Amino acid sequence: MDLDTKEIIKNMDLKFRNIDGKKLLLAISTDKDRNILMTAFMNEESLEKSIETGFMHYYSTSRNKLWRKGEESGNVQKIIDVFRDCDGDALLFTVEQTGWACHEGYMSCFHNKIDLNTGKFTVVGNKLD
Amino acid sequence: MDLDTKEIIKNMDLKFRNIDGKKLLLAISTDKDRNILMTAFMNEESLEKSIETGFMHYYSTSRNKLWRKGEESGNVQKIIDVFRDCDGDALLFTVEQTGWACHEGYMSCFHNKIDLNTGKFTVVGNKLD
Repeated sequence: MDLDTKEIIKNMDLKFRNIDGKKLLLAISTDKDRNILMTAFMNEESLEKSIETGFMHYYSTSRNKLWRKGEESGNVQKIIDVFRDCDGDALLFTVEQTGWACHEGYMSCFHNKIDLNTGKFTVVGNKLD
Repeated sequence: MDLDTKEIIKNMDLKFRNIDGKKLLLAISTDKDRNILMTAFMNEESLEKSIETGFMHYYSTSRNKLWRKGEESGNVQKIIDVFRDCDGDALLFTVEQTGWACHEGYMSCFHNKIDLNTGKFTVVGNKLD
């Protein structure tokens, strides 16, 4: 008998925090080679949709809405594995990334290397779009 | 002429969010092999201390205070590189981890692999303490 999604989430024993007034948790996605692609927030609904579809859904705090990764760009993220951190407020997803993860056209959102002497940052990695 | 730390942080053009009522940003640390060690929050003061000392400082939302990683366990994190994400609300640190990162005695805090059919999780990786 398949558990329903709410029960599955209950078993994960997660801690949703108050972030900009919303109940959210952190989601980090990496590819199979452990390249960190992006980090964003999830509310319970986006976690439910991610579990039910097998594709990453997040919660956009700038647009205040559920967001299916790649809904506009086609750069979807197919879920392979999920890891929970020790205090349950962050999930680490291994995903299969179609295209690239960053809306600025880079594989990873972490494409700005910071010089800690000045705080200035330079782009690393190639623009893919 | 060395910039002062506040100027360095200003040049990073970061976005501190309202998290549990505090102005914080996300910090993710990985080792040189891109193993994700942990994620925690930073306020401006902990970012300043990290820059000034070259060792990771975070902000503990459970103890409401600045937290020098390893201040009690000795498991300090020496900063090697820093990357800023595209919207400036998360920093990715490559660090040299002394000992292990997780207070539960594992190298990574993400040591709980979740079965998405049940939500139950099993420990992956060895306990090191």
